[in-house]
Amino acid sequence: MKDDCKTVRVQAPATVANMVCGFDVLGFCLDQPYDIMTLTLLDGTSDILIQHLGAYDLPTDPALNVAGAALIALQEELDGAMGFEVVIDKRIKPGSGVGSSAASAAGAVVAANHLLGGRFSREDLVRFAMCGEKVASGVKHADNIAPCIYGGVTLIRSIHPLDVVALPAPALYATVVHPQIEVRTSDARQILTQKVLLRDAIRQWGNIAGLVAGILKGDNALIGRSMEDVLIEPVRKILIPGFDQVKTRSLSAGALGGGISGSGPSIFMLSASEETATAVAEEMAVVYRGIGIDFHTYVGPIASAGVKIV
Amino acid sequence: MKDDCKTVRVQAPATVANMVCGFDVLGFCLDQPYDIMTLTLLDGTSDILIQHLGAYDLPTDPALNVAGAALIALQEELDGAMGFEVVIDKRIKPGSGVGSSAASAAGAVVAANHLLGGRFSREDLVRFAMCGEKVASGVKHADNIAPCIYGGVTLIRSIHPLDVVALPAPALYATVVHPQIEVRTSDARQILTQKVLLRDAIRQWGNIAGLVAGILKGDNALIGRSMEDVLIEPVRKILIPGFDQVKTRSLSAGALGGGISGSGPSIFMLSASEETATAVAEEMAVVYRGIGIDFHTYVGPIASAGVKIV
Repeated sequence: MKDDCKTVRVQAPATVANMVCGFDVLGFCLDQPYDIMTLTLLDGTSDILIQHLGAYDLPTDPALNVAGAALIALQEELDGAMGFEVVIDKRIKPGSGVGSSAASAAGAVVAANHLLGGRFSREDLVRFAMCGEKVASGVKHADNIAPCIYGGVTLIRSIHPLDVVALPAPALYATVVHPQIEVRTSDARQILTQKVLLRDAIRQWGNIAGLVAGILKGDNALIGRSMEDVLIEPVRKILIPGFDQVKTRSLSAGALGGGISGSGPSIFMLSASEETATAVAEEMAVVYRGIGIDFHTYVGPIASAGVKIV
Repeated sequence: MKDDCKTVRVQAPATVANMVCGFDVLGFCLDQPYDIMTLTLLDGTSDILIQHLGAYDLPTDPALNVAGAALIALQEELDGAMGFEVVIDKRIKPGSGVGSSAASAAGAVVAANHLLGGRFSREDLVRFAMCGEKVASGVKHADNIAPCIYGGVTLIRSIHPLDVVALPAPALYATVVHPQIEVRTSDARQILTQKVLLRDAIRQWGNIAGLVAGILKGDNALIGRSMEDVLIEPVRKILIPGFDQVKTRSLSAGALGGGISGSGPSIFMLSASEETATAVAEEMAVVYRGIGIDFHTYVGPIASAGVKIV
């Protein structure tokens, strides 16, 4: 029986960062796709052993692996030597823009914390998992990590010091389309200018304030009209064929709004009902069939829970 | 009896724009000081007659007067000819940074709408009153107008098209100090750079999102730590002697946070209790007595109601 407690399996879900107007600070949790991770505690050693199931050619050296780097950060705050064996069944395609690396990092530390009796807070876990994100993209961002751990919608008010604000999951359905092209997070960051017009920044923070108010007031119309991005989307959408068509057709089909998921190439839309969200998925499919790019779509609620112990 | 209905008296309160991190989009309503305005409906004429009580040398030509310009904008959406006689007892000192011009403009249109049987929506009234602000500062901004009309805290999500989001009044007390120096709104705007670092803008919109979440969740600590301004305050505070001292001493006395009210020179702080807000006023007084600048202080709750019919 005791040995059973030393192994845990988790589902680490995909997440959507930015939510259009909340670049680098907002994100929400999906209920699928998700990675399945199995962690086993190794007493008396600090070894981290990583094994990947599936087709993706991901590093297994812990320092170069997102789950490994997150676990190393966690180990640094442990008293004794504790190692982990990690088996990752990666189902969220790397580079899809729905937080594939965040899922591995978040799943690893939530699972490890469960094995250790829950000694760390959720904010601690975000802090550790951010070290995994740094391995993946060179930047310690938390806008996928936080919703993956907290569920619902999260706001990273500040990175230094870390300040995560949990917002409730609005009763909305997300539609995500992942066109099978590659957009590297590092490239998507590099095309952004370092300076922006104050006028545009004001418009952006009016929108993020509106979006947060809409989420907390349950005002879907306000959520919809606040999902406007005058700074990032106009630049990044160039990297995503079909973006404008997807957006136009989705809104016509009844979506409240949406835009690029994280740094792309996935595009998300939010709708008030599952029926509309499904109709939106069909519109997205029409666009990518027309262009001749392979794609996957997902439809599901904004998930109120993040990484789940299964 | 009928003639009585053609005259109305209102109290038009001072307001605090920006709320530190919400430049140009957030504002809240004070319960004092306030202007007292008396409007009388003049049937069968479009004349607007303006009379000022008190010492301030303000224009009485309707097109050049903030209340007059707001009423002209309202008249343009009336079918018949309706004029107004306006008597303004201005008690909010012009140029103090607590929405003196907004109070006149908002008071005028709320009073006029009352005389006209309430045919316009609050958002219409904001739109009319913004034409008054344009006369005062050259810019059609609404961050003082909206809280003066709606009460509580308001978000101007967008100016074009106008989108006012009403937020509840947090159960907090405001302390305002008005050092008797002049800072012109137009000067305070001109010293701002037109471009800002994206990195700073991200920090700013993390804060405004945190502030809105704090207001709606009733989380005073979050409200406090979100009132941080990395863009505007560092530039504008140079125009306000004693600013850093006021801020440091207010926070030491227990204020949650605060900063420049509008474009200054008034400084506001928010506190969880009236007792703390009063202690903060005393600290502000110590600073300006030390510098040798005359000042007024006000202590009162964030007002949930705006312009009041009395």
